[in-house]
Amino acid sequence: MPRISNKGLQMPESPIRKLVPFAENAYKQGKTVFHLNIGQPDIKTPQIALDAVKIHSLDILAYTRSEGSEGYRQKIANYYAKNDIHVTHEDIIVTTGGSEALLFAFGSITDVGDEVIIPEPFYANYNGFSTASGVKVVPVISKIEDNFALPPIEEFEKLITPKTKAILICNPGNPTGYLYSKEEIKKLAEIVKKHDLFLIADEVYREFTYDGISHYSILQEEGLENHAIIIDSVSKRYSMCGARIGCLVSKNKEVIKTVLKFAQARLSPPTLAQIASEAALDTPQSYFDDVINEYVERRNVLIEELNKIEGVQVANPKGAFYCIAQLPIKNSDAFAQWLLESFDVNGETIMVAPAGGFYSTPGVGLNQIRIAYVLNKESLIKAVHILKEALKVYKD
Amino acid sequence: MPRISNKGLQMPESPIRKLVPFAENAYKQGKTVFHLNIGQPDIKTPQIALDAVKIHSLDILAYTRSEGSEGYRQKIANYYAKNDIHVTHEDIIVTTGGSEALLFAFGSITDVGDEVIIPEPFYANYNGFSTASGVKVVPVISKIEDNFALPPIEEFEKLITPKTKAILICNPGNPTGYLYSKEEIKKLAEIVKKHDLFLIADEVYREFTYDGISHYSILQEEGLENHAIIIDSVSKRYSMCGARIGCLVSKNKEVIKTVLKFAQARLSPPTLAQIASEAALDTPQSYFDDVINEYVERRNVLIEELNKIEGVQVANPKGAFYCIAQLPIKNSDAFAQWLLESFDVNGETIMVAPAGGFYSTPGVGLNQIRIAYVLNKESLIKAVHILKEALKVYKD
Repeated sequence: MPRISNKGLQMPESPIRKLVPFAENAYKQGKTVFHLNIGQPDIKTPQIALDAVKIHSLDILAYTRSEGSEGYRQKIANYYAKNDIHVTHEDIIVTTGGSEALLFAFGSITDVGDEVIIPEPFYANYNGFSTASGVKVVPVISKIEDNFALPPIEEFEKLITPKTKAILICNPGNPTGYLYSKEEIKKLAEIVKKHDLFLIADEVYREFTYDGISHYSILQEEGLENHAIIIDSVSKRYSMCGARIGCLVSKNKEVIKTVLKFAQARLSPPTLAQIASEAALDTPQSYFDDVINEYVERRNVLIEELNKIEGVQVANPKGAFYCIAQLPIKNSDAFAQWLLESFDVNGETIMVAPAGGFYSTPGVGLNQIRIAYVLNKESLIKAVHILKEALKVYKD
Repeated sequence: MPRISNKGLQMPESPIRKLVPFAENAYKQGKTVFHLNIGQPDIKTPQIALDAVKIHSLDILAYTRSEGSEGYRQKIANYYAKNDIHVTHEDIIVTTGGSEALLFAFGSITDVGDEVIIPEPFYANYNGFSTASGVKVVPVISKIEDNFALPPIEEFEKLITPKTKAILICNPGNPTGYLYSKEEIKKLAEIVKKHDLFLIADEVYREFTYDGISHYSILQEEGLENHAIIIDSVSKRYSMCGARIGCLVSKNKEVIKTVLKFAQARLSPPTLAQIASEAALDTPQSYFDDVINEYVERRNVLIEELNKIEGVQVANPKGAFYCIAQLPIKNSDAFAQWLLESFDVNGETIMVAPAGGFYSTPGVGLNQIRIAYVLNKESLIKAVHILKEALKVYKD
């Protein structure tokens, strides 16, 4: 029998999806499961986006340009201008989700064995994309005690080698909810300029910032034009995760020219989803105001309730819709499985994401979980109550 | 300024798209351009597929399962059963186009430096996917004089090394239109079993077979279960190139398990396009009958007209909707550019795909072009007339 590749063997399993069979068993037992584990929001997609695909008059569902239609890219550039990010449509390549944007970025700037420094904990699929691309992730640990702030610049400099090609951040952060300050972005800008690296920022949660703090993009930072690569997506912004439309943005012409070659090989991003995504750009501001208000209230409830549980430490998120909670347990993988298999409060239990998968340093974060606050407040209160009761009886 | 990767530098430009600026100039000059260069059919998408996205009642455009919804995969399995290919939904991973299916296949079975043997000329983007995956394409030349039949098995065996992981075929073939016979598939089956290789077949043109010859899939061949990987797509079958829905099919459990990890990293194939693609499976047979009749007539007209031109040699395609024509010129890249820049018949000219990009052996196929017969018969007759007039005056 022919053999799987080493790369294939090394591809990580999703830290969340490996719990799915246990969740399915829980359903079979008749349990209700509150899903704190996934980043699929319950927020409605803007009607204008859903309507756009219903009123189209295509009779051939044809390819679009590999880089996305010029009209759509011009509208994206206008969106960025409103966010004080000044780019033209020529700086934008439309991709199949933020996932593909990151794969294209890795392909364009790294060769096999190259290194990318990433503050951890980080979005678990960065591990998958780097394995697929043959890139070595070099983690810098950010700490729950510091609310997951940017680690000191010296920690980055210690890790830079001739193989280092980029620093990758997620801002605001999945899974931490941490929002980097302007000063932190300036520190990163200095280091990438000094060492001639790329700075990749996954800014898919740009709008999800709370407490009056605003997002500072790497492309707002002057002098970073040749270094900055933004990864973006419509998935969370418009609650359109299933569209699979994102983009890569860079003022570096060589980067765009190279990314375009990867884009041409796969022909075109999905056409129907581009129609929906273009329409989504006309979503009224009131939609976002409502969504942000909702998330702030959810976050407030969640953090307040978590803080009431003895032994639980939680970083207060300023953006996105995740938080990391440190629990008085040893192994959150086993705990998450136990919650589904062996625990319930009146037939209800919770599914959480063990945080180990969000770290690449082995053994770190094993007593942490990621909570996505993508449920309504009543459900969140119930879910935290279940967590509290579970921690009373759980032994590991 | 930070540097692009070697991989990025090596990524090939699309052999067709590099002519696009010349086509755009031709439009500006007021010329009409007949596009023989692309595989975007003018055939209408089945109404049932277009309607499906109009009548959906989603209010959240959410992720689907990474492997595609179970319902859709079951319907795909039924489709295969009708084509005498016996698989279950568990043997199928839904992908973002056939492109992603091939990338996942390469990722799952090859490591950097591994080799894949491909009869050339082959679909040009195989070069892009192999560069992106760090795979070395090892070509076996098939010849226009043989109508691009499978090269002798000894030619394959000569090229097999310890690095060889797979043989990749496109059946029916883009750009040759060649349809492999059952006997040829059996020969390939023998060789992959003997040398413990995978056999990847891009069967996206399965339905497009002419002259009463039927398609023989690698998964119809007994004993090939652990070796066979099918790449498939809705793009051409239902004229839905912009959907970006395909799938990978294999009875090899290790392959499916590994491909699933790649699929999970990118979360989900596009949701709207899956709705359309699932509906497309209910397209009535009359649609396909009409489409095949149309293509047969186009092919007949095209080949007949091409054969009338002195010095032009053409392989008669038995499937897909392409043919390779050998012209009495030295360099089809220059010729294709000249057609757009400096030639017209009463304000009309043609855009063709130079065939060099479909070969990986340097210098081969330079006097050939690929013609996609995706235009109506009247346009094809006009287009071949333009080619004939052009060859009368062209000097290289």
